[in-house]
This record gives sequence, C-alpha cells and structure tokens, in this order.
Amino acid sequence: KTGRRSLSRSISQSSTDSYSSAASYTDSSDDETSPRDRTQVNSKGSSNFCVKNIKQAEFGRREIEIAEQDMSALISLRKRAQSEKPLAGAKIVGCTHITAQTAVLIETLVALGAQCRWTACNIYSTQNEVAAALSEIGVAVFAWKGETEDDFWWCIDRCINTEGWQPNMILDDGGDLTHWMYKKYPNVFKKIRGIVEESVTGVHRLYQLSKAGKLCVPAMNVNDSVTKQKFDNLYCCRESILDGLKRTTDVMFGGKQVVVCGYGEVGKGCCAALKALGAIVCVTEIDPICALQACMDGFRVVKLNEVIRQVDVIITCTGNKNVVTRDQLDRMKNGSIVCNMGHSNTEIDVASLRTPELTWERVRSQVDHVIWPDGKRVILLAEGRLLNLSCSTVPTFVLSITATTQALALIELYNAPEGRYKQDVYLLPKKMDEYVASLHLATFEAHLTELSDEQAKYLGLNKNGPFKPNYYRYNSPNFGYRTQQNSSEPAKLKANNSLFDYVIAMQ
Amino acid sequence: KTGRRSLSRSISQSSTDSYSSAASYTDSSDDETSPRDRTQVNSKGSSNFCVKNIKQAEFGRREIEIAEQDMSALISLRKRAQSEKPLAGAKIVGCTHITAQTAVLIETLVALGAQCRWTACNIYSTQNEVAAALSEIGVAVFAWKGETEDDFWWCIDRCINTEGWQPNMILDDGGDLTHWMYKKYPNVFKKIRGIVEESVTGVHRLYQLSKAGKLCVPAMNVNDSVTKQKFDNLYCCRESILDGLKRTTDVMFGGKQVVVCGYGEVGKGCCAALKALGAIVCVTEIDPICALQACMDGFRVVKLNEVIRQVDVIITCTGNKNVVTRDQLDRMKNGSIVCNMGHSNTEIDVASLRTPELTWERVRSQVDHVIWPDGKRVILLAEGRLLNLSCSTVPTFVLSITATTQALALIELYNAPEGRYKQDVYLLPKKMDEYVASLHLATFEAHLTELSDEQAKYLGLNKNGPFKPNYYRYNSPNFGYRTQQNSSEPAKLKANNSLFDYVIAMQ
Amino acid sequence: KTGRRSLSRSISQSSTDSYSSAASYTDSSDDETSPRDRTQVNSKGSSNFCVKNIKQAEFGRREIEIAEQDMSALISLRKRAQSEKPLAGAKIVGCTHITAQTAVLIETLVALGAQCRWTACNIYSTQNEVAAALSEIGVAVFAWKGETEDDFWWCIDRCINTEGWQPNMILDDGGDLTHWMYKKYPNVFKKIRGIVEESVTGVHRLYQLSKAGKLCVPAMNVNDSVTKQKFDNLYCCRESILDGLKRTTDVMFGGKQVVVCGYGEVGKGCCAALKALGAIVCVTEIDPICALQACMDGFRVVKLNEVIRQVDVIITCTGNKNVVTRDQLDRMKNGSIVCNMGHSNTEIDVASLRTPELTWERVRSQVDHVIWPDGKRVILLAEGRLLNLSCSTVPTFVLSITATTQALALIELYNAPEGRYKQDVYLLPKKMDEYVASLHLATFEAHLTELSDEQAKYLGLNKNGPFKPNYYRYNSPNFGYRTQQNSSEPAKLKANNSLFDYVIAMQ
Amino acid sequence: KTGRRSLSRSISQSSTDSYSSAASYTDSSDDETSPRDRTQVNSKGSSNFCVKNIKQAEFGRREIEIAEQDMSALISLRKRAQSEKPLAGAKIVGCTHITAQTAVLIETLVALGAQCRWTACNIYSTQNEVAAALSEIGVAVFAWKGETEDDFWWCIDRCINTEGWQPNMILDDGGDLTHWMYKKYPNVFKKIRGIVEESVTGVHRLYQLSKAGKLCVPAMNVNDSVTKQKFDNLYCCRESILDGLKRTTDVMFGGKQVVVCGYGEVGKGCCAALKALGAIVCVTEIDPICALQACMDGFRVVKLNEVIRQVDVIITCTGNKNVVTRDQLDRMKNGSIVCNMGHSNTEIDVASLRTPELTWERVRSQVDHVIWPDGKRVILLAEGRLLNLSCSTVPTFVLSITATTQALALIELYNAPEGRYKQDVYLLPKKMDEYVASLHLATFEAHLTELSDEQAKYLGLNKNGPFKPNYYRYNSPNFGYRTQQNSSEPAKLKANNSLFDYVIAMQ
Repeated sequence: KTGRRSLSRSISQSSTDSYSSAASYTDSSDDETSPRDRTQVNSKGSSNFCVKNIKQAEFGRREIEIAEQDMSALISLRKRAQSEKPLAGAKIVGCTHITAQTAVLIETLVALGAQCRWTACNIYSTQNEVAAALSEIGVAVFAWKGETEDDFWWCIDRCINTEGWQPNMILDDGGDLTHWMYKKYPNVFKKIRGIVEESVTGVHRLYQLSKAGKLCVPAMNVNDSVTKQKFDNLYCCRESILDGLKRTTDVMFGGKQVVVCGYGEVGKGCCAALKALGAIVCVTEIDPICALQACMDGFRVVKLNEVIRQVDVIITCTGNKNVVTRDQLDRMKNGSIVCNMGHSNTEIDVASLRTPELTWERVRSQVDHVIWPDGKRVILLAEGRLLNLSCSTVPTFVLSITATTQALALIELYNAPEGRYKQDVYLLPKKMDEYVASLHLATFEAHLTELSDEQAKYLGLNKNGPFKPNYYRYNSPNFGYRTQQNSSEPAKLKANNSLFDYVIAMQ
Repeated sequence: KTGRRSLSRSISQSSTDSYSSAASYTDSSDDETSPRDRTQVNSKGSSNFCVKNIKQAEFGRREIEIAEQDMSALISLRKRAQSEKPLAGAKIVGCTHITAQTAVLIETLVALGAQCRWTACNIYSTQNEVAAALSEIGVAVFAWKGETEDDFWWCIDRCINTEGWQPNMILDDGGDLTHWMYKKYPNVFKKIRGIVEESVTGVHRLYQLSKAGKLCVPAMNVNDSVTKQKFDNLYCCRESILDGLKRTTDVMFGGKQVVVCGYGEVGKGCCAALKALGAIVCVTEIDPICALQACMDGFRVVKLNEVIRQVDVIITCTGNKNVVTRDQLDRMKNGSIVCNMGHSNTEIDVASLRTPELTWERVRSQVDHVIWPDGKRVILLAEGRLLNLSCSTVPTFVLSITATTQALALIELYNAPEGRYKQDVYLLPKKMDEYVASLHLATFEAHLTELSDEQAKYLGLNKNGPFKPNYYRYNSPNFGYRTQQNSSEPAKLKANNSLFDYVIAMQ
Repeated sequence: KTGRRSLSRSISQSSTDSYSSAASYTDSSDDETSPRDRTQVNSKGSSNFCVKNIKQAEFGRREIEIAEQDMSALISLRKRAQSEKPLAGAKIVGCTHITAQTAVLIETLVALGAQCRWTACNIYSTQNEVAAALSEIGVAVFAWKGETEDDFWWCIDRCINTEGWQPNMILDDGGDLTHWMYKKYPNVFKKIRGIVEESVTGVHRLYQLSKAGKLCVPAMNVNDSVTKQKFDNLYCCRESILDGLKRTTDVMFGGKQVVVCGYGEVGKGCCAALKALGAIVCVTEIDPICALQACMDGFRVVKLNEVIRQVDVIITCTGNKNVVTRDQLDRMKNGSIVCNMGHSNTEIDVASLRTPELTWERVRSQVDHVIWPDGKRVILLAEGRLLNLSCSTVPTFVLSITATTQALALIELYNAPEGRYKQDVYLLPKKMDEYVASLHLATFEAHLTELSDEQAKYLGLNKNGPFKPNYYRYNSPNFGYRTQQNSSEPAKLKANNSLFDYVIAMQ
Repeated sequence: KTGRRSLSRSISQSSTDSYSSAASYTDSSDDETSPRDRTQVNSKGSSNFCVKNIKQAEFGRREIEIAEQDMSALISLRKRAQSEKPLAGAKIVGCTHITAQTAVLIETLVALGAQCRWTACNIYSTQNEVAAALSEIGVAVFAWKGETEDDFWWCIDRCINTEGWQPNMILDDGGDLTHWMYKKYPNVFKKIRGIVEESVTGVHRLYQLSKAGKLCVPAMNVNDSVTKQKFDNLYCCRESILDGLKRTTDVMFGGKQVVVCGYGEVGKGCCAALKALGAIVCVTEIDPICALQACMDGFRVVKLNEVIRQVDVIITCTGNKNVVTRDQLDRMKNGSIVCNMGHSNTEIDVASLRTPELTWERVRSQVDHVIWPDGKRVILLAEGRLLNLSCSTVPTFVLSITATTQALALIELYNAPEGRYKQDVYLLPKKMDEYVASLHLATFEAHLTELSDEQAKYLGLNKNGPFKPNYYRYNSPNFGYRTQQNSSEPAKLKANNSLFDYVIAMQ
C-alpha cells in the first residue's frame, strides 16, 4: 500500500519474482509429486534434505565445476583458509538463490569448517540439479524450483528447526529466514552470533528492526560494499542491458532512439552500453546533479513527453513508480519496446495496460505484444519486472564478488572478539572491500603497484591499505583532510574499520 | 617534513605554481616599474587599487564580457537575487586567481550588494587587463602578474588593512589571506561572519585550525561539493589532457602507448579521453578497488616497470610522490613524454633529472627535452607541475560552477541566523549542490522531470529536493534505507542540510 | 582441392551449414513422416506445395507480420509499386533461407505481379510455419527443416520442373538452383531473363561460369552492393558478436583479454563492440594497411603466439584457414573461448582437436568444452562454424536491406530494355544502392538534405544522385576528378550506371 | 563563377591559403628587406639559394632533428636505400610547403643520390629557419614566409631555370610548378621523367592535362593512396578537430550540441572525436548511404534548419558551397561557433556576413566574433577556411606517410624501365601502399603475422602481398572473385600493379 517499502508480511517481494535463468537446463516437470511427499536418500544413505531429484546430482556437480572456473577468487580464499578452518563450529543457516554459484560459496563455507543447512530465497530460482549435488555431499538443502508459498515457509522452517542442531550464524538474502527465526524461534535467534544480509530489502528490514530496538544480533550489510555495488549496478547493467534486449527481441541497436529514465548507476551502465553500440540515447532525470552528469556524458536530458512519440525503446532505471504511464504508452509508436532495469516492477504502469480494449499477445517467453485497437503494438518485456533478472544472465564473476564478500563477513562475525560488534547493522569497511577486490584481480592478470615505505609515509597510509577512507566516493578524491573527516564518522563505522584481523593476517 | 601536508609557512604552495593561461593575451613587460611604486587613477578619480596598468581596463572589460557568455548560471543567479541584495552590508575580502571568470563572480557579489577588496592567490596568474577593468568600476584590486613574494603579502595586507573599512566575509583560495588575517589581525578575524574556501590546501588548513580549536569563524568547504568535484576532476581532466598534450607537443594520439598512473577521478578522465582518441592505455594502481574498476573499464593494470621500455607517454595522477623515478626515466625510450596531472609537482622525480650528465633543452614554453648522454630525449612537460594548469585552459563552464557555489556559500553564511553555523568547517549540503547544478542545466537546454505528488510520497522525498542523501556516492544508488543512514550522519551535516532558506525561497 | 573456392559439386557448402535460428520456435519433431510422402491441401484446395505441416500457417502468418514491422522499407517499396505491377508476368524461382523475412520479400514480389515457386538454400534453416503460411496463400513452397540431401535436390527440381509453368527469373542464394537448372534444364535456363544472386559463393560460381563463357543470362551480383556489405559486415558483426558470446557462454566482457584475428570489416565490427564493453582487445593482421588502421584505432597488433597464453577469447575473422592451430590451442589457458566470425569453418583447426587424448563435452547447444588430459578446458563455439549464423540472430533490418536490394534487382533485370544487359555479371550501381539506403532512412526518422540547383551545379551532380562515383570507397572522398576516373571504369558498369529508370521514375 | 574546379590561372588557390603553423616559432619581421634584394652566403661559401636569413640555419637544424624522431619510417627507408643511391642522377625540382617535415624528405632524396632545388607551394607556409638549414647544407631553396605573388613565381622560376642544371623529376603540391614549367619551359618539361603530385588540386590539373592530350610525362597521383587518404582524412581530422576548437575558443566539449555537415571521411573523424568527448552530435547529409552510416553510428540525421536555433557548434565537411547560409547564421544562438573542416573556404557563406549591420571583432588570431545588431555574437573560426590547416597542427606521423609515399613514387618513376609508364596519371598500387604502411608499423611496435605457404596458396596470394586487390575498399572484404574483378580494371592500373620491383627487391 505504501510503495516500495511496504514489504509483504508473510513473504518478501523478491521471493516471488519470476526468475528465468539461462543456467537452468533441465525440465523439472517430469515428476509431479511434491518433494515434500517423497523420501530420497543420497549415496551415503542420508535423507537429511529435500530436493526435486537427488539423481540429478551428477549433472549439478558439473554445473558447480563450471561455475568454479569463474569464481577463482572464492576458490583462492578457500585454499588460503582451508587449513585454519576459521568457521569450525559455525552452524550456518542460509537462505539464498540456490544456483551453481551459491553452491561454490556453500562448499567454501564447508571447507572452512562450517556446517550448513540451506533453503531458497525465491520459489522459482532453485537449480534442482545443484540442490541435488549439494545434498549428495551432505549439505542439508530444502529447496526446489516451483515451490508454493507454503512450501517456501516449510523449507525455511526445516532449515532452522531440526533436532540436535542449532544454528549460530545466518546468511540471508531478503530477510525471510531472519524474520521467520525472529518470530518463531526467538530463543534460537538470540543465540545467533551474526547475520550477513545481502539484499536491499533484507538490509532495510534489519535497519527497521534495529531502529525499533529489536535487533539483538550484530548484522553485516554486505549489500553496500563498494565492490558489490559497482558490480551489481554499473558493470552488471552495462553487460546485461544489451543481452536482455537481444535475447527477447533481437532488436538492432544501431540508430535506435532510446530513452533511459534515471541516470543513477544503473542508468549510467545502460546508457554507456547502448551509446557504444550506436543507439541514440537520451535521459530523463529528476535530480539536477545526475542530469548535469548526463549532459556532460553526451546525453540529451529531456522530459519523457517531449520524445514519447519518437522513441524506439524506453528503459526505466529510477526506483520510482509510474515513470511510464498509460497515457504515455498510448502515444508510443508501433513496434516500440518498454522494459525495466530499476528496482521494482512498478516503474512502468503495467496494471494500466490490463484493460479490455488492449489485447495482450505472448510472443515469446517474457515478451508480450500489447496491441491497441488500431493495431499498434508495444512490446513489453518481462511484464515490467527486472529485465536483467528475467531475461539475461548475471556473469558468474559478479556473483563471485558477492559470494566472497559474504564468506568474509561470516568469518569476521564468527571470529570477532566479544564486544567488537554490538546489536546493530554494520557496513563493510574499505579494508574488506579492498581485500575482496584484490582477490578478484588475478582474473584479469592485473598487477598492483605497492607503495614504498617512503610513499606510504608521505601519504600517511598503511602499505597494506585501506587506501581510501570509508567515506571515499570512488569518483572524487578528497586528498588532504582524511583524518578530520574520519573523525566525524559514526562510531560504529570506526570500530568496524579498525580490524578484520583475519584479513590482515592472511595477507 | 610530513610530505604533502607540510605547507609552506610563509606562502602556500599553490601561490607560486606557474600558471600559463591562454587567456592572458597581453605582454606585461612594457613597464618595468613596480605597480607599488606608481599611483594610478581610474576614470572616476579613485586610486583605491594597485594594478599593472589601469589603461588596460577596456581590453579587460571585453574579456569579462566574453566570460559572461559561458557563465550564464552565475549571471542568472545575479539577476534573480539582484533586487533583494542579499549581500547588502557584506564587506568581502577575496584572494583568488584574478581572471575574467573571477571578475564575473566579483561583479555578481557587487550586484548583490557586497563591497569587495581583492587580491591574487598566485603570483603569476593575474590577468592584468581584468584587474584593471575591475579597478575601473571601483573594486579595490591589489594584484598583478609577476608579483614578488613580498608583493604578494603586501597586496594581501592592503586588502585587509584599510582605513574605515573592515571586512566581515572572506573568500579564499589556498588559505593565505585567511592565515594572514588570523595571524596579523586577530581582532578583525574574530568579527568575520564566514569564510568560504575553495582549495584542497585551504580546506586542509581550516581543518587543522579547527582541530586545534583555533577556528573562531564558521567556514564553508566548497571544494568538496559534488558538482565542483565532478567538474574539477573527471570532466575537466577529460577535456584538458588532450589539449595540454597537443598544445605542447603536437603528439598524435592514435596508437600511442600511454600509462596513466592512478585511476582515481583524474586518472579516469585522462584514460577515457585518451582511449577515445585511439591511444592504447594501461594503468598503475595501488588500490585494488580502483584497479578492478580499471580492468572492467578495459585498461590493463600493470606495474610501471613492466611497460617502462615501451611506453610513449606517462601521465601521473596519484597525489603521491616519486611515482616516476630516475631509474625509470633512464629506461624510457627516445621521444617519450612525461607529464603530471596529479596534485603536486613531486609525482615525477624531476629533481633527479637535474644532474650533470643530462642536458636540458627548452624547446617550447613548458616543454623541455631532457637529453641522455646517448642522445635519447625524454620530453618533460611543465617541469612536472600540473599539465592542465600550466599548458591548457580550464573551460569557463567549470569555473562557473565553482563561482556559483562560492557566491551561494557567501550568501548563506552571511544571511544565516545566529547559531546555525558554529565555529567549524561545513560541507555544502546536497540541496545546494543540486541548486548549483540546476542553474547550469540551462546551458545544455536540459529539461528536468518533476516528481508528481504521488511519486514524491512514494520515494519519501520533497519535490524540490534534495533528491539524494548527503552520503550518496553518485555511483551507487542505495535505495530503501535512506532514513536510517541519514540518522547516523554527524550533527553538523544534518544542521546544514535542513536549510539554505535562501535557495529554497528563490526556487 | 584448392580450399575455400573448391565448392562442392553436388551441394553448396552453405546449404549444409548448421543454422540455429532463435526465430525458429516450434519443434518439428512431432511427425516423422517425410513431407514428400504426404499430400496436404491448403484452405483454398491447392496442394501445389510441399511443407512440413500446412496447419502451422497461422503461427507462421504472425511471424511474417512481426517481421513486416521491421521491414518498412520493403513494405514501402511494395506500396509504391503495387499499382504498376512491374513484375507482372514474371515467373520467379527462388532458392533462399525460408524465414519470416524472406516471406516478406516473396509476398512483395507477388504483390508486384510475380508468380513464385520457392525452395530452401539450406537443409536446416527453413521455418516450417513460415513455409506453411506462404503455401497457404498460394506460393508454391518446397522446403522443410531437416531435409536430407536428396530432399534438397528434389525440392529444387520440383520448383523448376512443373507442368504448364516455366520460370523466367531466378533469385538464388548460393547458386545451387542456378546450377541445377543450368545442368538439368539448359533450355529453360537459356530463356531466363535474369539471375539475382546474393551470396559470395553464388557470385563466385557465376563469375566462374562467365569466365568460362557459359553464362548465357545476365546476372546481378547483389552481394557487393555497398549498403549490403556495410550491413552484413561492419554493423551486423558489431551487433552480433556480443550476442553470440553471451547466449552461448554468459561471459562477462569487462576486462577480458580478446584477440581478434583479422582487421577487415568483420574484425572492425567485433573489435569496436568488444572494446566498447570494456574488453582489452588486440589484433592479428597480415596486411600492413589493415594493421596500421588497427593501431590508429587503439588496438595492439600482435602475433597470436605472443599472447596465446594470456588470452581469454579468440575470435577469427580472416577468411583464411588454420589461423588458430592445435599447437596454439594447446597453449591456451583454462576456460578460454575460441570462436569464428569469418567466412568458412576452417579458420580454427577444429579437426586437430578430434584426437583421442582430448575429451569433448557438449555443455549447451553449440557449446563444447574440449578437455585436455590435465583438466584444462577450452570452450569451442559452434564447432568453429560462423558464430553469428549459429548462435545469435541477424537483425531483421539487415535482412530488409538485402531483400529490398533483391527486389529492385529483379525489377530492373525483368524490365530492362533489350541489350541493356549482356550475358555477364553486373554490380549494383551507386544509384540503386542509394535508393535502397534512402528507403531505410525512414526507420531512423532521418532527414536528408537536398542540394540546391546552385550546389548541384557546383558539384557537377544530379540532384537525385548518384552522389558518389561507383569507385567511391565510403572512406576517402576523392573530390575533384570524378569525371576522369569514371571514364576509366569498365563498360559494363557504365552501362548499368546510366539507368535504373524504374528507380528514377519512382522518385 | 564555375565553382571549385575553376582554379586560378595565375596561382593555385592553395598557395594563398593562410597557413598558421604552431611549428613556426620565430618572427620573420626583423628584417624588412626582401630576400630577393640581398645576397647571402652559407658556411660553405655558396649563395645558390634565396631564404629569409641563412643565420637561422642552426635553429632550423634542430627543428629538422625533432621532426626526424617522428618520421622513423622515412629515415628507415633512407637507411635501407642509402648505399644503392636509387636516385643517383635525379635532378628534382620540388614545390611544397617548406617545413621541418619536408626537410626530412628532401634530405632523404639527397641521401639517395638526388640533387634538389626547392620552392614553396604557399606564400605563408615556409618555416624560414628550415629553409635556412636546407640552404646551409647545399639544397638550393628559394622560399620565405610572406612572399608576394610576384615573389612566388620568381622563386618557382629560379628553381627551374638555372644555368648548367636541368631538372628531370618534379615533386609538386598544387601543380603550380608543373604548370609554370609546362607553359614557360616546354622543352624542359618534355624531358621530365616523372611527376609526383600530392594535392587534390594538382591531381585534378594533371587529369585535365591528360584529358586534353597535353600530358607528355608520366605522373603519379599520390594523393589517392589508401594510406595517405585514411590518415589525411579520418585519423587526421579525428586528431585535429578537438585541437582546432580548443586552441581557438577553449570551448568545453561535454554536452555541446554540434552539427557536422557531411558524413564522409572527414565528417566521420570529426563526429567520432566529438562524440567521444561528450558532445551531442547530429549530422546533415545529401547522400542516403552516408546518412544510413551516420544513423548506424548513432548520430541523428537532420536538416540544418531543424536544429539551427539550438546548436552550439557547426562544422562543415562537405566540399560543397553555401552549406551554412546567412539566413541560418541569422538564426544561430548567441555564442555559437561556426567552422570549416571541408575542402574549400566556401562551405560557410562568409561573404554574406560582410554587411554593414554586422560588426566583426577579431578577438584572437583566427577568431572573429561577428556581432548582430541585437548583440548576438557568432564565433567564426579562420574566416571559414580550413580549421585544421589554420588553427591546429598536423601530426608529423601523418606527414611521414605522405613523405614516404612521395619518396617511393619518385624512386619508382625514376627507375622504371622504358615503357612501363606512359603519358598518363597513375594511381599508387596496393603493393606500394602496403609497403608505406609496413614501414610505419614500427612506430607502434606492431607485429605483422606472416602467411604460411599453405595459407598463401589457399588464399591465392603472394606471401609478400599485395594482400588486397586494387579496388578493395578497406571497409568491405569482397572475397572469392578477386581474379574476375581485377580483370576488369583499366589497363594502366594493371600495368602499374605488376611491378615496383624496387620495393619488392628491398623486402
């Protein structure tokens, strides 16, 4: 009722997003019996899991191996820390998308000593073969593609509530598991040593709990790490906007008139890719600073109404609602494409198109032609949901960054000395971000320059970093008064900043 | 002793940077008598100034008129506020570069009611004709091109110390005027209502004063406004690196192997421009996050030693020292170019080149050939000082952004109610930044989209902005927990954020 | 025996290329009876066709309608010429890919008065539903997806050899139909008024016939029209290289080290797209002029061996053979990708990979992992065949340019007065190219400037074009001696150049 | 009256173009006596020259040495051929711009055995110091900066007409020397072995002579070599458009609305550079093929009148006249910039601006403000003459390509066996172009790939090239019917193609 922030009480919005993964190869329609109604046994005789079909484990294993090839940073972390077992004793309940990439994360946690029980944060996104492969090696997975809402909560519950095993860490994506435990198992929740939360939604819910004074556990917000943000937004959108449009519509980019609504990081990524491929791009903005950047980057800044009759493609990247209205859709030309790369599915007023005079024709998966009485067709992608989640794939490398960050956050929270973290939500400090970044440089055969002692002294920096203060924006070097500014940062950031001994020790 | 931060006691480093302006047309060598030893009278009979030659006023006036054409945002502010005279009663002493663009600022301050006395922050940068033009209309200017250090302080002193006129506002660039007043005229200093400081150096000195508990006046750090930062770094460097190289060396960019040391905002601007013109660019970095960005942007990240024998051009953008050493210069190939776009003149170890076995040959202004015994020549630009300050021009539009920000900051500090600002250094809030940006959009005929009431409510924003929280990085939209984060910002930012009534009133 | 040019005697190479079309939606595996063994009847009672399933006509019709939306230039030609019926009396046999786009061409020919019989130039490429839709409206189509070689020739024969109907025009793609007629029905062949040939292969075979003095019919080489070339090569490859790589491997482009072998038009398109998306691209070349262009465009020119151990992706675009050898494949790193965008499937020495010590694993359609004994995997796409034909789609707009050119060439050859065309192969003159281009400008809402009388006189041009001489390279304007150069062009070009009355009349 | 092609009878248009060279460092105003009235003697006692001041020789020598560093290809040719002296006995009269780069060419010719007498093709372009340096080493130079028209012809005459020395080769730029000899010294002209002509104008005049049957000497058109064309147009304009605009106006490119008139190679270079720096560029075109390319490259194609009121910058690149009319200039906005990169100075109707109601104000060298009665200013650069000739510099590397081509053409014509060349104008064959290109690859450390025997056989190519047929467009590879097309080329091209033994011998 109150927009983006009114999260479903019973299930998080993201958990029901349709999720089309190019990596989901097999058809799960073969067996219509619910996994809940069947008992399966893995090759070691365990039935401590609930997946679609344990026999798909071998296929899933191969998928995991393929993913490992693009997640060398995480594998490298696994190898460095394997002998120390920094997660020995950790009992982690996880609730994430269950994909080959997540499996690499989970198996890393196991390699570092953790015991894991896992469930899916989305009812559509589970790769059944991967779930089988994890179950086969003994991870207790409760998830399959196409769960009902009831299944969804049943799986979460089964993760948490098992005899003789009590979780002490949470890895969550969306906050559903966290909230289920908070509500149903408050005594378990109180004993959790730390929560690592990845998503915008989940982080928001944690901040709400914290504000209400009900967060009794330290939590780490990994969503806002610089590395993750850059990759999830600018680079990932630059990679996926072209892919999403091509796979759905085979549109030619050259010469196309495109409007990108919103020139934040997502919009910047879309604009850069489209301009590079020969599209003629203009931008709408509400914020004059972003608008000025668009101008300087060579994009005309217009109101949507000025160009609505000419545009070939509209891409929304605002986080706002009703950015494209029915009135505007009425004026678009035949054959134009409308899609959304922003945060919710409300940016395009899709609801307004569900009226009797308009005909919807599903021409491909995720592609609808909405047909006006005069025959005009507007091509709507993914019914206005996120194009890159629905119609393209996310590079494994991007997922590697997130997974590495999650693993490090779990290690830190689990190993932190008493008192380092209070019952609050913490941002990842620069030092950690820098470490995650450095692990990923090997992929590019990039060679970092090291400061000489003299230079480090001149700059007032530790030779191992952090190289930038926490507030550094990565687009405006503010030399010279580093110390002062740091001094005005909130206390909890400062506390956090000083340590991550584990990371330092590993270097 | 402590590197970059150990500023000269007697004169700021920036005040002696050589400053070559393409806009400085006339030769000031005609009259060798020091302006201090001559009395000149303007057409109204006043001699309350000290410039090179008052007769050059007409030429200077034309330069100012030309500058006005590219500073329409500032002119627009002038027109909007002219009738209200928000600076009536303000007595401003200013110490900045004295150029046509500064003149537009000064005349705007005068139009808004202020009285101004002005001096130069750099002994080389004064455009004598502009100084004459300002003096002609009654601004008390004390500055000429080619001052001695003694002249420099004499001019500052004459600005502050005049009978029957006591300044109540400071506009400074580098902090020399501020410190002179602080040391020599502490009683005047205490009565100052506000200081507006533009430079990194000056801001640093203010923070030092503040830290030492000696800042008895509120100060506004305009250096770190988002708009200024973006334009002074990314866009300005993107514009000027090509210009600086061409004007000095006529080098062809296509196919050139370039190393850019440092991938901060300055480095990003240089890399983007050079890559776009066909250079083959690689990057050195110490910070893994910046290095990862360079990789994703398509630049190889190398150590300088790996490529030193192949490179055609080295550009330093680090803020560090000895980034290019004598040892490396020894290994560069014949005809290669070395220059600096970073913060100081220490990035290239120029001192190490001043040894007997090397011959220096000045081939053009700002261009030296350093010749090795075997005949190899390395082309050193601006003796390692800032290339774009020395060898190219800064677009007037960029200066307009700074000048508009300065004018608004002066208005705010002068009009702020008692208690709004304490004796501290304040950052410019988003709201102000956004207002400066919006004034500059007209130049691009950019049209902002306005939020509907419903959208504003959905986003939890005021329809007039600010549209982003203060901590927003302009490269990673953090939707959804705006409120929480704001709540953890330091108090002084919050106070500042809430107001700028003047700006709001004007909209 | 002599490589690329030794075309199969019995069936052209291109006719058996695997052809994976994203536009082929339906599964044809439902009915295993050969279409040759079934008699089907369309709704008008005709059974003068042979397709997979006439009942798929409706689905095919929709596909054609969708294609029409992106082929507005061809539709526009159809509308302009419809009343005149310039092809009245034309009996055209066609042998092309049978897709929705070809259907728009065929239906245009029909609308202009022609009768058509059609067959497929490739045994895999037919869209069965489209073939059904054409058959439904009375075009005699003989084609289905998955023909045998015997089927292939049977279909061609049925096209030509039918009672009471003798073809007088040929539209061919690959030359198989032309050669079948030439060999089997020489008397029919002699009465053909003209051949329009689209492909490199087919054009080559025509030139061979002509050289041997056996070409008794005028033929138009539409493959080498400037417009088609530009779109088939530079623009089409720029569009499809990213698509082909993403759909098959989900590879992230940012920071990838890519080698493009060959810097012709195809290589230029690939390089431009990859560089724009953040890949680090270098180039191999044999031709110093192309190599110099690569340098100036910002690509390092290397020998493949210099970089083979570092590269992430190799893309061949040379038209040569064994550009990537087994020895080089042995040295590539784990996870690297090899694919071909060039002219044949011999650029990568794929045969050398079919040895016992290497394991092939098909991981997706068109994607093989070739696994070395030490576990190293090299990812081979489309078994070395053309990536963009196999793994991505060609924009309809590109096909529209070809189709429009084909239609105009047919009209011209059919309507040309006796003697205008001799028994030779003709290139399309600039005038025609310009006309095709102008029909496609509407898509972009591009507005051409018209010459004033004075300007036309000054330039010595007709106001309606042609604007460039036939030899014009579209990358180096040679003003000033147009007349002289034209005078040295071969006679047949001149003859051709002077007319195309039909085009001129239409303007 | 008769347009571009009506060349002045008495002096070629190009010879009076103003020519501002950043490389012309010294002021020649010191001595007002005409060089014709003074006798100077070089250090060897010779006075067989006529330059401004022989004492400037040392300064000129340094300029030549600097130029040599960027002309390594020419130096490399000099070294390879020096021992053979292929120009022994050649007596070359040259008429070109006399700059440091030309001096490197002349000294190369001398090193290869030639005797040279030289004069300037432009009355403004001579670098006096370089002319002195050449005279000092014994080249008979007759040229100075600021010649009168009478001086111009006197110098040419003195070059040709000297006792005891009769020229047998001509190197010309513009055709003035050729025509002077043709008219005044027909008997000398008849004995010339070959003419090498660089300019469009000169080539045109040669074709006219040839057409009229009056060309009694073989001539080589080096203007139309692919390498030269690419560099003189696309790359050179890409490099110089930004430079020309910055040096004259300091304009900021970001966000500027620019119209480029004409999308030939010059326009393409301008568009690419400006788009890359953040300008918003649209294009006007008369030719639909070029217009379609502009669309695909991401530029809106408009009529000038559609955008005239919004544009910030107009750049003409058409070769046409009155492309920007007074009527349009009237409608441009205040502060907009108009300049020309095309072929003549008639593209902008500058004459129409010389009316009483408009005020012209010269604000910098080459920069005029044209002021309308209402105060509007339009900034006109170089009075509508070529911006990059007048206001920026041409990279030495570009000049090296031209100079190397000229040297090779001279060698070929001088050494060609009787009968190889008839009395006609010859284009440079691919083989030669490729050789010039290969000499320049060293600058970029580019490594060519060599064909294996097997590959050469497969492609039907000689391993040493030529790699492309003469008609190859460098933007559309036409594989497969190379032989046929070659066979239809005019005889003179074929003849030429077969040889250049000298080049082959050197490889």
